[in-house]
Formats: sequence, C-alpha cells, structure tokens
Amino acid sequence: MKIQHQISSAHYISGGFINRWQRLVKDTIIPYQYEVLNDRAEGAEKSHVIANFKNAAKALRGEDIGDGFYGMVFQDSDAAKWIEAAAFSLISYPDEVLEKTVDALIDLIAEAQDEDGYLNTYFTINDKEKRWQNLMEGHELYCSGHMMEAACAYYEATGKKKLLEVMERNAEHIYKMFIAEKREGYPGHPEIELALMKMYRLTRNVHCLELAEHFINVRGVDPHFFEKEAAKRDWSVWGNDATNHHYAQNFAPLKEQNDAVGHSVRAVYLYTGAADLAAEKDDTELLSACRRLWESITKRRMYVTGGIGSTLIGEAFSVDYDLPNDTAYNETCASIGLMMFAAKMLEADPDREYADVMELAFYNTVLAGVQLDGKKFFYTNPLEIIPGISHIAATHWHALPQRPGWHTCACCPPNAARLISSFGKYAYGENTTTAFCHLYADGEVSFKNGVKLTCSTEYPYGFTVNYDIIQGGKTLALRIPAWSKSYSITKNGEALSAEVVKGYAYFDVSTGDKITLTLDSAPYYVYASTKVPELTGCVAVKRGPLVYCFEGADNGEVLPLSLKRGGKLTVSDTADTALDGAFRITAEAVRADDCGSLYSSEPLTEQPCEAVAIPYYTWGNRGENQMRVWLSEVR
Amino acid sequence: MKIQHQISSAHYISGGFINRWQRLVKDTIIPYQYEVLNDRAEGAEKSHVIANFKNAAKALRGEDIGDGFYGMVFQDSDAAKWIEAAAFSLISYPDEVLEKTVDALIDLIAEAQDEDGYLNTYFTINDKEKRWQNLMEGHELYCSGHMMEAACAYYEATGKKKLLEVMERNAEHIYKMFIAEKREGYPGHPEIELALMKMYRLTRNVHCLELAEHFINVRGVDPHFFEKEAAKRDWSVWGNDATNHHYAQNFAPLKEQNDAVGHSVRAVYLYTGAADLAAEKDDTELLSACRRLWESITKRRMYVTGGIGSTLIGEAFSVDYDLPNDTAYNETCASIGLMMFAAKMLEADPDREYADVMELAFYNTVLAGVQLDGKKFFYTNPLEIIPGISHIAATHWHALPQRPGWHTCACCPPNAARLISSFGKYAYGENTTTAFCHLYADGEVSFKNGVKLTCSTEYPYGFTVNYDIIQGGKTLALRIPAWSKSYSITKNGEALSAEVVKGYAYFDVSTGDKITLTLDSAPYYVYASTKVPELTGCVAVKRGPLVYCFEGADNGEVLPLSLKRGGKLTVSDTADTALDGAFRITAEAVRADDCGSLYSSEPLTEQPCEAVAIPYYTWGNRGENQMRVWLSEVR
Repeated sequence: MKIQHQISSAHYISGGFINRWQRLVKDTIIPYQYEVLNDRAEGAEKSHVIANFKNAAKALRGEDIGDGFYGMVFQDSDAAKWIEAAAFSLISYPDEVLEKTVDALIDLIAEAQDEDGYLNTYFTINDKEKRWQNLMEGHELYCSGHMMEAACAYYEATGKKKLLEVMERNAEHIYKMFIAEKREGYPGHPEIELALMKMYRLTRNVHCLELAEHFINVRGVDPHFFEKEAAKRDWSVWGNDATNHHYAQNFAPLKEQNDAVGHSVRAVYLYTGAADLAAEKDDTELLSACRRLWESITKRRMYVTGGIGSTLIGEAFSVDYDLPNDTAYNETCASIGLMMFAAKMLEADPDREYADVMELAFYNTVLAGVQLDGKKFFYTNPLEIIPGISHIAATHWHALPQRPGWHTCACCPPNAARLISSFGKYAYGENTTTAFCHLYADGEVSFKNGVKLTCSTEYPYGFTVNYDIIQGGKTLALRIPAWSKSYSITKNGEALSAEVVKGYAYFDVSTGDKITLTLDSAPYYVYASTKVPELTGCVAVKRGPLVYCFEGADNGEVLPLSLKRGGKLTVSDTADTALDGAFRITAEAVRADDCGSLYSSEPLTEQPCEAVAIPYYTWGNRGENQMRVWLSEVR
Repeated sequence: MKIQHQISSAHYISGGFINRWQRLVKDTIIPYQYEVLNDRAEGAEKSHVIANFKNAAKALRGEDIGDGFYGMVFQDSDAAKWIEAAAFSLISYPDEVLEKTVDALIDLIAEAQDEDGYLNTYFTINDKEKRWQNLMEGHELYCSGHMMEAACAYYEATGKKKLLEVMERNAEHIYKMFIAEKREGYPGHPEIELALMKMYRLTRNVHCLELAEHFINVRGVDPHFFEKEAAKRDWSVWGNDATNHHYAQNFAPLKEQNDAVGHSVRAVYLYTGAADLAAEKDDTELLSACRRLWESITKRRMYVTGGIGSTLIGEAFSVDYDLPNDTAYNETCASIGLMMFAAKMLEADPDREYADVMELAFYNTVLAGVQLDGKKFFYTNPLEIIPGISHIAATHWHALPQRPGWHTCACCPPNAARLISSFGKYAYGENTTTAFCHLYADGEVSFKNGVKLTCSTEYPYGFTVNYDIIQGGKTLALRIPAWSKSYSITKNGEALSAEVVKGYAYFDVSTGDKITLTLDSAPYYVYASTKVPELTGCVAVKRGPLVYCFEGADNGEVLPLSLKRGGKLTVSDTADTALDGAFRITAEAVRADDCGSLYSSEPLTEQPCEAVAIPYYTWGNRGENQMRVWLSEVR
C-alpha cells in the first residue's frame, strides 16, 4: 500500500501548539525575514537577496547593476524559501497584504529571468559567460530547485501561476541542456531532484519527471565528473575539493550506496527526491537504496534529538556511532531534510518508523533552530553547551550558545519557516481508501478521498487527540508512536480495538464519529547503544516526542549533575508560558561537589538533589548557560 | 633554595625498568633511527636527513647538489636529536662503534656549515638568499637550538668539542645578527632559548645567555612582527597564518602571559628556556609568569596521563577543562617539553609538584609514544581508541590506533629517544649542601657536591627504593610523590623521621648509610573535577605513577564496561614479560548488554564482571582494539 503524494490534502491548522508556531511564523518570522531580505533588519547579517534580483534584472536590461551581487552563491534560495513559507502560511491564514508582497517579489524574480529561461542572480550579475560551468559549486540547479518548490507552493496557496510559469520555463531550459543536448553532469548540491518531482506532481509535465530521474540516476556514474569539470575552468567559488566524492554523494550511483555520507543536507535532499522518484516509478532497486540509507542514518548516525550530520568538517555525516554532544553540527536544515526524506519513505510504505523520526526531528532539532520570539536562529544544534568551551575552543567554534539574528549563510532560518508553516503536509496523507494521520495538530483537514475531519489536541504537551469526523465513509489510519508504551482509541466513547499494521491503527469511520486517541503521557528515560562511545553510562529524559535537556537557568551548574536510575520523573503542574507553554520535568538526581583540583584520588562527594529539565527545543532562550541533554546516571 | 643546573651530576643507570628502556634506546631505537635517517629502514617514511647534510655541503662547495633537499623545513633537527640520544646513551653505555658513527655524522654537519657560521640544510640547498627572512616558518633558530643541545650532550659524553665548536660559531653568527646588528624578530618555534641556556651553562659564553634573554624577552613585544615579516617576502613554507598570535605565543610579552596557549610544543619549549633564564638571572617577574603558565597547564589543561595540547587544530592547547579523550592530540614531544619545563621549575623551587608532573608525563605519555619493540612511534596520544571511529572519522584522523614506523613529521621518535636516554638528568639534582633524588631509577650517581650513591629499585612496578650511600656527608633530599598515600623511610634499618618540605624528605647521610624509601603500592582510583565535561561520572585507575587503561585484548569490547565505585582493585601476581613486565590490575566492573538499537527507553541490563587494566604506556602493542583510560562508574 502506498500513500498518494501529500499535495492531495488540504489542511488548516487552527489552534494548539502548531498553530502557535505557525502564527509565530506568520506574524513574526515572515515579516522579520522579509526585512532581512531587504537589509532592513537591525543587527542582522546583510542579506541583499532582493537587491540581487533587482540588479540581475538591470543586468539583463543592460542597465547599470548598482551595487551588484552580494552574499552566498546560493543567496537566491533564501528568497525562494521565504516565498514558500509565505505560501504555506497563506493556505491556513489568508492575508492580502502578504500576498501582495509576495506578488511583487515574484514580479522582480520574473524580471531577473533571462530570455532562455535561465534564472540565477549570481551569474546573471557577475558573469553570464560562467553559467553552468561549475555545477559542483555554482548552486544554479539548487537555486532553481528551491524556486520551483516556491512556485508549486504559491500556486497551491493562491492559484496564481506567474512564478510557476517562470519555473516551468526554467525547467525547460534545464531540460534542453541536460536531456535534449545531453550535457554532462549533476548538481553539486542536490535539491532540484525533489523539486522537479513536486513540479511533475503538480503540472504532470513529464520533462520534470525525466529530469529528476536523470539527475538522480546519473549522479556518481562518473564519480570524477566534478574533477573534469574543474579542470576545464580557471575559476572557482570556494575552491571546493572536487576529489571529495563522499562530500557530494557522488562516489557511486545512488542505487549502489549503503551509508549516508558527506554533507548531510545534500544527502537527505538527494534521498528525498530519490524516494519520491522510486515510489512514482515503482523502482524497487532505488527504493531499497533509500531504505539502506534511511537505516544508515536512523539506526547508526542520528542523535536522540533527530539531529544529523555530526561533524563540522564538511557539515557532514561522520562514521557509525560517532555522535559527540558538544561538537555536534546537526544543521537545522539537515533535520528539515530528514523530515522530507521520512515523509517520502512514509508515502512509499506507511510505517510509523518514518513518522516517528519525522516527529522527532521536528519537535526537537527543527524547533530548536528558532528562538521562541521568532527573531533568532540556530544553524547548528549541539546537545551540550559549556560556556567557556562552546564557541571558544577551536573545535567548538560552530557550537553557538545563543541564537544569532541571521547568518551569513542563511539557509536555515527560512527553511525552518517554510517547514513549520507546511506542517500539515507532513501530518496527513491519503490514498483512495484511507486517510492517514501521521502527526497530531489542531485543525481541519479535507482529504481528496472525501474524508473531512477536525482534530483537537494540546499535543505535544497534551496526550489526548480528538478527531471529529465531518465526512466519513473511508478508513482512518492513526499512527501510534513507538515511544507510547500504552495507548487507547475510543470511537464515540466506546473502546475500539483496531487492527494495527506497522504502527498504524486502521478502522473505518462514519460521518459524525468522534474518535479519541490517548497516548502515554508519562515521562521516560532514554538510553543509548553501548556502541556510542559518547553516551556510555549516560541517560536522557523524554516525554512524548520531546527530548528534554538540563539548563543552567533551572539548575545552576549542570556538569555536576547525575540522574538516579529509575528515579521518579515529575511533570510540573503548570505550563511555563514564557517558555512556549512548556511543562518542566523534575528528576531525582545527585550533585557532585567539585574536588577542587583537576584530578583527585578521592571520589567526589555527592548530594541528593532535583534536576530540572525543559524541552530541548526551548533551550538557549534565557541567556548563556550550561546545557546538557545526556547526564551521567547513578546506578 | 635553588637546585643547581642538572649538568652537575653524573649518573649511570645500571638495572631495572629505566635501564631496560635505555637499553632499548641503545640497542634498537638508536640503530633503527640511524637507518631511518639514512633512508635504509624498510617500510618507514623517507627521512633524507643525512643526505640533506651531504647535499648542503656540496652546495657550499659549489658542487652538484644531487637529489637536493627533502623533508620538513626542520628536518635537520631529527639528526640533532638522534645525536643527543646517542650522546646520552654513551654516558651510561660506552660504545666505540656508535661513537664513531656519531663522529662521522658530526663531520658531515660541520661540512654543511657556511663560513659565517650559518647551519641549515633547507636554506643552504634550496636558496641561500632566503636565509633569515622567515623566522615564523623557517625553523632556522629551532634547528640551531636542537643542534646546540646535541653539541652540549656530545661534549659531556665524550669530551669531543667539534660539534660544540660548530655550534659556538653558529651562536656567534646569530648573536651578530640579532644582538650586534639589532635584527628584529624572534623564532616562530621556540627551542633555541633553552638550548642557548644549555650552551651558556656549559661554555659560560655570555653571548649565549644574552641571546637567550633577548629572544625570550623580545617575543610578543611586537605581536605583529610575523605579519610584518611576511609582508616583506613573496614566499612561504606552509602559508602559516601570521595573525594567529596565540599559536606562536607572541600575543604579548611572556611576562604578561597568563594562559598556556597555542602550539603546545612551542609553548613548553619557550617556558623551559624562560624558567631556566629566570632562575639564572633571579628574574622573579619572569619566574612568576612561568609559574602562572605552569598552573594554567597542570591545573586546568593537562590530561591525567600528563598529555598536553588537546586539540589537533594548531597542535595546540585548548581552553580550560576542554580535555576530550578520543580526539586528544597530546603530542609526545609536548609531554617531553612538559618534563623539561617541570625540571627547570624544580631547579628554581624544589617542590615535588614539579617532579610529580615530570614523572607522570614520562611514565605515561612519553613512554606510550614508543612501541615496546622500539621500532614504532606515536605522535599523538589519545585516551580512547574506538576502531571504526579513531583515525577514520574526519575529526579523528590523527588518533592512530597503532604506532607507525616513522612519520613524515618525525619530531617525536628521536625526541623520545633522547629523553629516555637522559632520564638521569631528570632524576637527580643538587646544590652545594644537598643531593636531590627526584625520580627513582636503578644505578649509580656521582654528585658534584661529593655525594655518591647507588639506587636499586623495581620502580614503577616495585615500590621500595634502596639507596646505598657510597660517599655521604651532605643532605639527601628524597621526593615523596603526592600520589603515595603513605610512605616510610628507614636509615640502616631504623625508622627515620625526616623533615619534609614541599614533598621532599631532607636528612643527612653518611658514607655507608643504607636508606630505604617505601612508597604506597596500592592501586587507586582517580576522579576528575566536575569542570571537565568529558569526565563527569567517570573514573580511572592508577598505581604509583602509572595510569592504567582498559584494552580490548584483555577485555573484549571495552565500551560496555563500567567500574564499581570502591570496587576492589587487584594487582596481578606475575609480571607480563611480553608487556614490558607490566602488572595488570583487575577491577570490579559491570558489562552492559547492548540494547540492540541506537536508542532504547529501557535501561541496559548489566552483568557483574572483571575489567582488566594495563599500564597506559603499553597500549597498542597487541593489535588494533578498543582502548579507554576513563570508564563510567557505577555508584
């Protein structure tokens, strides 16, 4: 059984936790990021994205290009992700002013497109002659991909076709080169593959499918393509090492790959497109490769927070079980990409395993990427912060103890915005017989198969999920997360014993049915495999999908704390509204007295105490202090 | 009270542990390294050191330079350290053949010296015009320093003056430039400072003292010297970053420095020269700076093994308490330098604190740098090895699980050789009234103050140290190490209650006295400050000065092991002759059963077991396997 592509369901988040975050995106993040894109946000890094489009249009018209291009070679994609975030937001929260702002930006983008369909401000402004000469570093296909995603989302949100037509022309330009004219190569940074699949599903333009298939299958067939490409030109963007075939996942064809390696965002973007293609084409060989790569990530290379890409060196996956807490890279974008990959694997095979990881990555690493006020953002998401070491030691410079307002490389902030505002796309799925509820979020959903329902829940802080079936007559599939040690489902107040397949409870629903899913609200301890050197003797705390952490603001010094095995975990009675409505968890613990010297031959004395944990995603909102997810365990 | 410079005592190691290592140096390491220096050692990295001297001599004579220069810019120093090792070895173990070999090498070196006293094969062969233009990277002063040390040692060993005269001419050449002609600058890699102090103490040539003082005091007065120097030339050796003032300890004058920073070998070589100069000149300001830097290292930045320089990035000190086990750099040379620094601090102030660290670094990190067969060498000394991660993960490439035969950058192997063969210089000290016994080693010592004694001990595997006083009439000062929770001293069989000042027991000895020092032989646990994030909840095992570690060869998988707090530590009945005569220690432990998944919400079950530890310095001698110094503690 497969789930149809997510675009088929309409969903309107109306309340609860997700609504609050989506409102934050709408009310704060989208306007704030628009100011950033226009270089009007005080104290934030310069972006220049909008100016780049204006200057590219001038360049095409042969006018003076003003202050030229500024930013990363892939700066255009920040605008694309912002449009996508705005588009998804407009689906749930119509807003004429925002729509007009987006329309105006789309007009600018259209003006920056060349006659032949080419669209990229870096090369249009800097040197048209260098187009398509540096697939390894140039990010032209990457930027096109992001803009295609934006085009699809904006069409879906508004029915407006302008950007979609721009990107169809762009797709045809790319098709002409790589398919019709058989140009060699594949993108340095995968992204366009998954975007072309979106374009294909929306427009049914087979050129898009053909291009996606081409880029996915040709990758790594010649692992030395980037070296050959580099040899042909006398310039580079960053001087990337073309011989590092792991970095860009081109050491072998994807179908032959077994381990998730290299730049983690590139990897999961590639796998997302591949999983989507595999499902579309019933390519079992490709799907098997995706499954192997999924297992490589989630069974051996993923943090308990759903963070992936443990090393700064190449922003990359490390080897199996190398999961350092303090130097974890864990780019926010990588966990977003992991959600995308999980969503596609889930469509190919409705198994809660995928939805569980999707949820884990969302509620922990993705949300941790955003300050609770929506104005600051983490690029990296370590599991330990020690002021004095983090961001100061040479090996820890990337481990920021506080979120900055923007980043020179600003891929993450708009990526988080578009992800949060498209939450419904990850929460629901369907096929002709069944409506799938993967994630829990307040709101209304209209499935294309006719099912319509409203969901109300305080999840992830409440563990009851109510569904009112407005239109039934089909099967409902409710995910039971693996973390929930017990659960119950009632239909109209009666216990319901549903068939559970791969973690989904399947049962038929009729119009007017009231379904209640109750999950296990008890906090619990988590342990790691002994194969993870960093985590031997350690324990963490979770409740529902939320990983908790211990921060200085609640505990003073965190380093001397150890948790007691089997100690009682107590959930606070009240939510902390200043901390996103979080409920704290208090754990039985001991606090070691420092020995007063670097080493001592006497055991450190310890005093019983309580250790207070907050959800990991809320850390770093109360000033710089020690933070740990994993504590040593007294047993 | 000060101790006179160590050169004053003569010592002949004749048995026991140190003798075995010195014989290994003499019988294996010195001959093996000589083969390496001549590029005749199979499977070892090319050295070309001897060929470089030959080719430099040819260059000076205007002859064809053959295959030119090969190796690091500081390749000459490998020959210098080899000569020094040979010289120290000749003191205890006369050997005509070896002496002739050294003489021949010295003849070659003398031929490679330019008329003006300049001596450096890299610049002599490659480009004479580039001499002294790149103090930052060129290592000319560094190589001179090492050759001065070799010259002093060889004169002391043989009374032969040829190399000493070569280096006196070299010193005068340097004096002329930097003092007489007031050339600006200071060495990128300190070393010549401590060597000039040695030259001064041997020759009483005040130019050497003046030069040492100059280089130590001028350093960092202009922190931008290397940038200015770099701006004047159009070439570099490695493209070092001249603006990294911490790397080369030139961010401020040494007297104003508080933290041990930058390249750790450079740092401790500099501090060694400074401490020696401070003692010589009674410069309390300089000595205070050395004391602050000593505390920075030993109280906040040193591993339990006496390893220093925790990060690969710049082979450098990190910040306080950042002491990762798995990625520890801990260069062998840095611990040798720490011993040198400790020895000089000890001369300035006879406090066991210095001798304890000297001993810790020697018996653990320095000896770990050498394979038990004397043919392979570690450059880095991590405290954890996990096959599959160590040397494979991008952040761990330097953490070798096995010693290679030689290194492209071969500073450590000959450094370890010269250190081991000069052990007596660290073991003893004296002034007019007192003979100091800092470290324990079998053999005979003649102090210049008239005291003569023999020492017999199985230390560090035996804890009784016997001294036969062949010539008395002075005070004997015996160090009582801080790790020894109890001790006793007897004189001629009677308990002796000596005054103990700063960890030294002082008492008068007469000819014929038999003194016995008995130290605590019980193995013990070690704990770390809660300020060290890496070590919370962890424990290590020591016996005497030896840090122990747990290796796969004795334990199978080490990662699942935890030690029981207060568990009995049992020393094996027999020494393992295949493992350098080591006694194993068995600890009460538990072994966790793996949960079979990356994360689990169930605690890992644990089975009681025994964990077997071996001395850290013997690890890596039985194939590649897991190794850990610190284990999680069950408490």
